[in-house]
Amino acid sequence: MATKHALALLSLVLVTVWSWKFRGGLAWNTDKKGLIFNWHPILMVFSFVFLYGEAIVVYRFYGGSKAVKKTVHLSMLGLASILAVIGVWAAFRFHNESTPPIPNLYSLHSWLGLATLGGFFTQWLVGFVTFFYPGGAPQQRSYVLPWHVFFGLFLYALSIATAQLGILEKLTFLQTGKTIPRFGGEATLANLLGVVLAG
Amino acid sequence: MATKHALALLSLVLVTVWSWKFRGGLAWNTDKKGLIFNWHPILMVFSFVFLYGEAIVVYRFYGGSKAVKKTVHLSMLGLASILAVIGVWAAFRFHNESTPPIPNLYSLHSWLGLATLGGFFTQWLVGFVTFFYPGGAPQQRSYVLPWHVFFGLFLYALSIATAQLGILEKLTFLQTGKTIPRFGGEATLANLLGVVLAG
Ligand code: HEM
Ligand code: HEM
Ligand code: HEM
Ligand code: HEM
Ligand SMILES: O=C1O[C@H]([C@@H](O)CO)C(O)=C1O
Repeated sequence: MATKHALALLSLVLVTVWSWKFRGGLAWNTDKKGLIFNWHPILMVFSFVFLYGEAIVVYRFYGGSKAVKKTVHLSMLGLASILAVIGVWAAFRFHNESTPPIPNLYSLHSWLGLATLGGFFTQWLVGFVTFFYPGGAPQQRSYVLPWHVFFGLFLYALSIATAQLGILEKLTFLQTGKTIPRFGGEATLANLLGVVLAG
Repeated sequence: MATKHALALLSLVLVTVWSWKFRGGLAWNTDKKGLIFNWHPILMVFSFVFLYGEAIVVYRFYGGSKAVKKTVHLSMLGLASILAVIGVWAAFRFHNESTPPIPNLYSLHSWLGLATLGGFFTQWLVGFVTFFYPGGAPQQRSYVLPWHVFFGLFLYALSIATAQLGILEKLTFLQTGKTIPRFGGEATLANLLGVVLAG
């Protein structure tokens, strides 16, 4: 468990170093559209890997009353939803504002990304109305719970796989475009990030 | 469950159509090194997605005695190991025999691929000596079993993610090299394969 938290933190560090040090940092209003894109990996790893991963172990691995843990669980996942939307928005802005514009939603990464996003919102809403407000009858809750856990873990795996696909895609663009070499500091860092996400 | 089998079969059909109809088919002794590569996706999906997926549900979803199911489980996974080695060999041959040669093991796909392969062999050997021959003492078996199930499912998820990374990488090479367009029959087929693997 300590390992899990450590890997989650490490993935945050690695994605930040990648975007900041190698890809030139972050900006929202800029002519360098690549700097807008850089929000995408950072926000997605923070929301859909880090916050997601920490929120689903809250019930098991932290102290406190059930009511508090429930609020923490739903709030962290609500925050994750919002940051994920901003993160995906950054990717779309990068595509639309590039000259010439880059088409949207052509890749396996983007398809699975949208599926993850849609599944996540649905999961949050169903969780909210069933377990929080207005809250279902006891037999409804106990019927939904195993599905909630199953889909929650399935979407987590999908989210990790999507993030790995994004890393590979970004790196492949840079490498086939000869912006960076196949072997080198940046490639090793990004591949390492992908390996850490698998852990 | 019927859905699971149907998706497994569909992934086989899709990867075959992709390699055969769009990528020009299969060959082992040829100057067209791309035809050697084409064994890679077909063999990997057949071994590490199809056979793997069917072998791990044998205990639950087929009739027959425990001893028979055990033999089927270990044989299917043994066959999967052999075919996976040939499939990875095909990818290495493609790299080494291309002019100029393409370097090996630079990508996240190949790193996770090797990790999957290594994990799989280890899992098979530990499974074999613990549950088949010579076979551990009962308390040894019951200690190993939950780890066997956990790693078996973890490696399955890793294997699926690796296959999706391979699909994205191949498609990205073809698209950035302008061999095929971003939107079109081949891209849709390959992305669909990636989505089906997630199911
Ligand atoms: C689970 C987390 C993630 C989700 C849900 C996600 C989702 C998306 C979506 C929906 C798009 C399409 C944008 C458009 O078509 O305009 C996209 C694009 C992109 N993402 Fe991600 N992403 C995630 C993580 C990452 C990470 C960690 C990277 C690493 C660099 C990344 C790299 C890219 C790249 C290079 C593109 C542009 C190319 C393309 O459209 O496939 N993504 N992402
Ligand atoms: C996308 C959003 C969500 C995801 C991915 C998610 C995921 C999960 C997962 C994986 C578990 C199992 C945790 C464990 O086994 O320890 C879980 C448990 C639970 N979740 Fe969620 N959840 C989400 C939203 C919500 C919301 C909005 C609520 C509303 C309160 C909620 C209430 C619960 C409850 C009551 C449990 C059971 C805790 C227990 O008794 O062990 N979830 N969730
Ligand atoms: C779980 C299944 C898979 C495993 C374990 C796996 C493993 C590997 C390995 C170890 C390599 C490195 C070869 C070298 O460096 O010479 C490789 C290369 C490659 N594989 Fe796969 N593969 C899998 C599935 C797929 C699939 C389904 C595709 C779809 C087309 C694919 C596409 C590629 C491509 C394009 C390369 C060459 C580029 C690179 O080295 O990353 N792979 N694979
Ligand atoms: C890479 C190879 C292997 C993988 C990925 C693997 C995976 C799995 C998985 C996921 C399960 C859980 C199935 C379920 O819950 O229904 C399982 C069960 C089992 N496996 Fe394997 N396995 C492998 C090799 C072996 C070998 C070589 C043996 C030797 C006989 C073996 C013996 C067993 C046994 C006895 C069970 C428990 C069946 C039961 O009582 O439910 N496995 N395996
Ligand atoms: O050999 C075996 O070991 C496990 C179990 O007995 C461990 O407790 C099992 O199901 C077998 O067939």
